[in-house]
Amino acid sequence: MHARLLSAPSTAAAASSSSRTSRPRRASSWRPKPRGPVSAPPLSLRAARASMQPAAAPQDGPGGAPAVRGVSETVVGVLGGGQLGKMLCQAASQMGIRIAVLDPLQDCPASSVCHEHVVGSFTDGDAVREFAKRCDVLTVEIEHVDAATLEKLEAQGVDCEPKASTISIIQDKYRQKTHFSNFGIPLPDFVEVDTLHSIEKAGEMFGYPLMVKSKRLAYDGRGNAVAHNKEDLSSVVASLGGFEHGLYVERFTTFVKELSVIVARSRDGSTVCYPVVETIHRENICHVVKAPAEVSDKIKKLATSVAENAIKSLEGAGVFAVELFLTEDDQILLNEVAPRPHNSGHHTIESCYTSQYEQHLRAILGLPLGDPSMKAPAAIMYNILGEDEGEAGFSLAHQLIRRALNIPGASVHWYAKPEMRKQRKMGHITIVGPSKTSVKSRLDDLLQRNMSNPTKVIPRVGIIMGSQSDLDVMKDAEIVMKNFDIPCELTIVSAHRTPERMYDYAKSAKDRGLEVIIAGMIASLTPLPVIGVPIKTSSLSGLDSLLSIVQMPKGIPVATIAIGNAENAGLFAARMLARNDQELSERVAKHLEDMKGMVLETAERLEDLGSDEFLRRKD
Amino acid sequence: MHARLLSAPSTAAAASSSSRTSRPRRASSWRPKPRGPVSAPPLSLRAARASMQPAAAPQDGPGGAPAVRGVSETVVGVLGGGQLGKMLCQAASQMGIRIAVLDPLQDCPASSVCHEHVVGSFTDGDAVREFAKRCDVLTVEIEHVDAATLEKLEAQGVDCEPKASTISIIQDKYRQKTHFSNFGIPLPDFVEVDTLHSIEKAGEMFGYPLMVKSKRLAYDGRGNAVAHNKEDLSSVVASLGGFEHGLYVERFTTFVKELSVIVARSRDGSTVCYPVVETIHRENICHVVKAPAEVSDKIKKLATSVAENAIKSLEGAGVFAVELFLTEDDQILLNEVAPRPHNSGHHTIESCYTSQYEQHLRAILGLPLGDPSMKAPAAIMYNILGEDEGEAGFSLAHQLIRRALNIPGASVHWYAKPEMRKQRKMGHITIVGPSKTSVKSRLDDLLQRNMSNPTKVIPRVGIIMGSQSDLDVMKDAEIVMKNFDIPCELTIVSAHRTPERMYDYAKSAKDRGLEVIIAGMIASLTPLPVIGVPIKTSSLSGLDSLLSIVQMPKGIPVATIAIGNAENAGLFAARMLARNDQELSERVAKHLEDMKGMVLETAERLEDLGSDEFLRRKD
Repeated sequence: MHARLLSAPSTAAAASSSSRTSRPRRASSWRPKPRGPVSAPPLSLRAARASMQPAAAPQDGPGGAPAVRGVSETVVGVLGGGQLGKMLCQAASQMGIRIAVLDPLQDCPASSVCHEHVVGSFTDGDAVREFAKRCDVLTVEIEHVDAATLEKLEAQGVDCEPKASTISIIQDKYRQKTHFSNFGIPLPDFVEVDTLHSIEKAGEMFGYPLMVKSKRLAYDGRGNAVAHNKEDLSSVVASLGGFEHGLYVERFTTFVKELSVIVARSRDGSTVCYPVVETIHRENICHVVKAPAEVSDKIKKLATSVAENAIKSLEGAGVFAVELFLTEDDQILLNEVAPRPHNSGHHTIESCYTSQYEQHLRAILGLPLGDPSMKAPAAIMYNILGEDEGEAGFSLAHQLIRRALNIPGASVHWYAKPEMRKQRKMGHITIVGPSKTSVKSRLDDLLQRNMSNPTKVIPRVGIIMGSQSDLDVMKDAEIVMKNFDIPCELTIVSAHRTPERMYDYAKSAKDRGLEVIIAGMIASLTPLPVIGVPIKTSSLSGLDSLLSIVQMPKGIPVATIAIGNAENAGLFAARMLARNDQELSERVAKHLEDMKGMVLETAERLEDLGSDEFLRRKD
Repeated sequence: MHARLLSAPSTAAAASSSSRTSRPRRASSWRPKPRGPVSAPPLSLRAARASMQPAAAPQDGPGGAPAVRGVSETVVGVLGGGQLGKMLCQAASQMGIRIAVLDPLQDCPASSVCHEHVVGSFTDGDAVREFAKRCDVLTVEIEHVDAATLEKLEAQGVDCEPKASTISIIQDKYRQKTHFSNFGIPLPDFVEVDTLHSIEKAGEMFGYPLMVKSKRLAYDGRGNAVAHNKEDLSSVVASLGGFEHGLYVERFTTFVKELSVIVARSRDGSTVCYPVVETIHRENICHVVKAPAEVSDKIKKLATSVAENAIKSLEGAGVFAVELFLTEDDQILLNEVAPRPHNSGHHTIESCYTSQYEQHLRAILGLPLGDPSMKAPAAIMYNILGEDEGEAGFSLAHQLIRRALNIPGASVHWYAKPEMRKQRKMGHITIVGPSKTSVKSRLDDLLQRNMSNPTKVIPRVGIIMGSQSDLDVMKDAEIVMKNFDIPCELTIVSAHRTPERMYDYAKSAKDRGLEVIIAGMIASLTPLPVIGVPIKTSSLSGLDSLLSIVQMPKGIPVATIAIGNAENAGLFAARMLARNDQELSERVAKHLEDMKGMVLETAERLEDLGSDEFLRRKD
C-alpha cells in the first residue's frame, strides 16, 4: 500500500518521464523510507477506498485499530492545481494532511506545495481514473472537470466530495439555475434559448438589456454577453459560439451590491456559514472583497439563509461559495454557486478562526467543522491581476507587492504562476485591521489613491443632538474624535421633533458601522453603548437635562457625563474603542500622560511664581 | 543559472540516489519548464551570491533591470528541516519564495513543503558548502550547525543571515553569556568551571542549589543539571560528560515567570518586537505559551527593552527569540537567545498580523518588516509532545487532536515527523479568542481539565464600592455579569478610607486584565473606561452621590448611570465588551429582545384583563 503512492500512473508517468530525472529531487514521502529497494507494483484498476481511516497504517495502534498518525491519514486527491489548490495544500501542510493534485501544467501553483503532483488533465477520464487510485477521497478546486467519469467512479465506490451530481449541476449553469429554481431559491428569471425565435421571445418577456449566457465553461465573465436590443441578438449569440454551445438568457438584474457567502457542509450534512462579504468586480473579475459586508443585519441574515438553503439542495461535503445579488428593493437573488473554495473566501486565511481551505479539508475528511467567525474586526482582499503581459506585468505586480509589504496588517499571497497575462489572477493581498475604516484607508495607501479623495470613511462614533443650539457643547466631542483620529459623524436628531428620524437613526446605527453613540439626549433604540451629555439649560443649569438622561429605567443603560462636558464623552468613547486597538490605546495613554504633564507644569509654575504673580500672569 | 537549481550536489546526490527513482515525482520547479533537454552543468565551487536581486532572471524587465517575479526571487537556504523549517517554508509558499533545506533526514518535516530538500548534515562542512551554492542567502532553523564553515563561506562572500558570528556566539552558551554580560544585559551570575576545585569555589560563591550547564549542544533542558550541595558536584559533572565537554555554572534563579520576546531585525538594523509572552515549561520543555503575558505594562516594557538590547549586540538579520526570567523583585534576567524562529512564537501564525516565520523571511531578504502586533486579543499555544513511543504515542496524540478540532478558535499544526518518541515535539495547537479567559477555558476543554477546578479566570470587569453597605445595590451589576457569562470581580475599595488601596487598584487594573470598571464612587486613576453608579443616600436620595460622580472635570470621563441602578451599569459594560465578541453580542441582542417580549406580554395582559383586574392580580 505504501508503494501505491510511489507508483506513477501510466499517463502521468509518460508525461513527466523527462522531468523526473532532470528536476530537483524532492523528499516528499510521508512515511519512513522503506529499508529495502522499492519496486513499483503492477498497476491495477482498484478504486481508491472511500474511507476516513488511513488506506493502510504501517502498524496497528494499541487497541488493534490502525492508529492515525496525526490529524488524518486520508490522502486527498484534488482535481486542479491552481491557486485554490495551492492554498488548499498550504492548509493541508499545516495539518500534516497529504494532497495529490491532478493538473496538466507542470508548474501549476499547487505543484510546489502538494504532496504529489500528477501531470494530467482533470477533463481526461483516463487521467482522472488513474489519479483516483492513489487517493482516498477526491475533491475539486475547479468545477470544469470530467463529471461523467466522477459519476462512474462514484458508482465503483470512490469517495467524491462534493458528489459528482453536484459538480454536474454546477458546471452547467442552466442546469444549476433550474436546480435552484426547483428548490425555491430566489434567482433572476431565466429561460433556455436554442433558436433566434426563442431568444427573441425571451427578449420580449424579460425586456432589454438582456443577459445572454453560455451554459458551460463560463467563469470570470467569460460566456456572458449583454444584448441591448433585439437587433443585437444574433451578433451576441455568435460571440458566444452560437446556439449549439448551449445558451440561456436571464432577466438583467440591477443590483446594489454583490454579496457572497461561503457555506461549509460536513459529511453528516451539518452546515456553518462564513460572514457575508461584499465582492466588487471589475470587468467581470473579482477585484476587491470586503469582509464583513456593509449591509444591515437583516440583509446578512437573509443572504445567509438563501445561501444555506441553496447548498442544502446539493449533495456532498466541502465548502461552497454562493454569489448573490442584493437588489434595490432589498431582495437577495442567487447568482451562482461554486462547489469549492472561492476567491471571495481568500480573506478567511488571515481574518477567520478557520480558513475556508482548512474548512474544506475538515468537511471532506469527516472532521468537525471549525469556527467560521472573524477573529479580527475587518478585512479587505485585493486581487493582484496581471496589468500587462510578460515581464512588464511582473514588474508592475512587484511594485504593488513592495507597497503591500509596507502596509500594516497586509499579507501578500503570490501564486507563482509561471506566466503573466493581462487580467490573470497572479496573487492577492489581504489587509486585516481593527476597523473597516482602517482597512479601507490602508487599501487607499496600497493603491496610492488620492488621499484628498478618499474612499468613504465609515464613522465609528455617532454624535447626535436635539437641536443646533447644542452644537457649541457637542462639538467638543467631535474635536476629541478628530484628535484621536476616530472617524465620527455629527448630526441633529430630535427625539421630540423628529421621532421617525430618531427611530431610523437608532435602528440603523449598528448596521451602518457605528460602534458608540454620543447623544445630547436620550437614545434607547439601539444595542450600541450610548453616552449621554446633558446640555446646560437656562432655567435649571442643566440639572433637569442631567436627571432626564441619567435616570433611565432598568434595562436601558445610558452612560451619562458631566453637564455640558462633551469632551469627556469623546474621551470615554475613545477609551472604549481603544480595547483591541493597540494604536488607539497608545494615543489614549499618551493623552493621559500629557494631561498629567500639564497639571504638573502648572503646579511648578505656581510654586515658582507664588500665587499672586501666578494669578497676575494668568490674566 | 536555471540549471543550477536542477543540479544535485555531489554529497546529497549520493545520499539520495536510490530515492530519486522510487519516490513520487514532484513538479517543484518554479520557472517554465525549459523547452529542450536539461543537462546538469559541471559543479563549480562558486559561492552563492549575496544579492537581494534574483540570481538571474530569465529575461530582463521593461527598464532593462531584471524584473522580480513576485515577492522575491532570492533562493533562501535553510540549515535544518525540522518543524521550524517547515513553518518557514509554509510562510514562503504563501509569498511564492523558494526555500532549499539542508537536513540529513529524508522525511524531515520541511521536506514536504520546501522547494528543494538536500539530504545532508548541517554539521558537515562539505555538505554546507555544496548546499550554499544553490542558495542566494543562508539562514538557520537550528543553531547547532557548522558555524566554522559558515564563517569561511561568509569570507568568500556568501550571505548568511544572521551572521556566522552570531551563530558561533549562540551555540556556545558560555560564550553567549559572556557576550551579553559584556554588553550590559542583565543575566544570572555565571562562571566557567574546568576542575572540581573551580566548581567547588563557584558553589561557595553562588550557594546551592547550583545550576551546572554544558556550553554546547544544550536545548530543551539537555545539558543542564542541578547540584543541591557540594557532595553532588562530581556526579553532576559526570552526568554532563565531565569537564572536558566544557561546563559553566550559574547562580540558581528563582523566577516568578518565564517570559519570551521575539525580536526581528532587518538588514538595515532596524528592529521590531513581538508582544511579550509567558512560557510554561514542563520537564524543561516548552509546554504552553500565553500571549500576551499576564504581567504589568512596566514589566512588558522592561522585558522588551532587555530583549531588544540583547539582539542589537548581535550581527545579522532575522528573528531572534529572547528567553527571560522575571524574578520576585521584578527584575528581568536574560536566560538565553535563539537566533531563529522559536517555539514561543508559534502563536504568531494565527494571532499576529505578521507571523514570526514571514517576519524572518522579510528580515533576511531585506524586505520591510511587518507589523508584529496581535490581531486577536489573546492566544494560547500548547505543544503536542509525544506521550508514549511509537503507535501508542500516535494514538494519544490523535485523541488530543480530535478534541482540538472541536474547540472554537483552535488551529492544529502537525509536523508529520516520521517517528514518535516520548517528549518529542510532534505538533502544536494554537487557540485564539476574544479574551484571555476564553482561550484559557478552551485550553481546559482541550485538556479535559476538571471544570470544578478551573484555571484562574481573569476578571474582565471590576466592580468596586466604597463600603459594604453599597453591596445591596452593586450586586445587581454582578448578577448581570454572571448572566452574560462575563468574568468579574467585586470588592470594597474606599477612596476616602483606603486611599492607597484605591490607588493600587486603579493603577494595576489594566495590567491585571480588567477591561471595564464599575464603581460605586469615583475612580479616575486608570485609562480604563469607568462606569459610575451613584448610591442612594438617606439625606439627599443619592443626588449628592450622582452629582459627585457625574460632574467630573474635563479629561476624566466617568460614565454615570441612574442612581442605584447597578443593573444598567452591568448592561452597559456588557454592550462595551460585545464589540468584537460575536457570542456576547448575540447574548446582548437576545436580552434586548427578551425585554421587549416581556413588555409586550405585560401590555397584552393589561389589555386582556383591564386595569382593575390587572392591578388586583398583580397584588
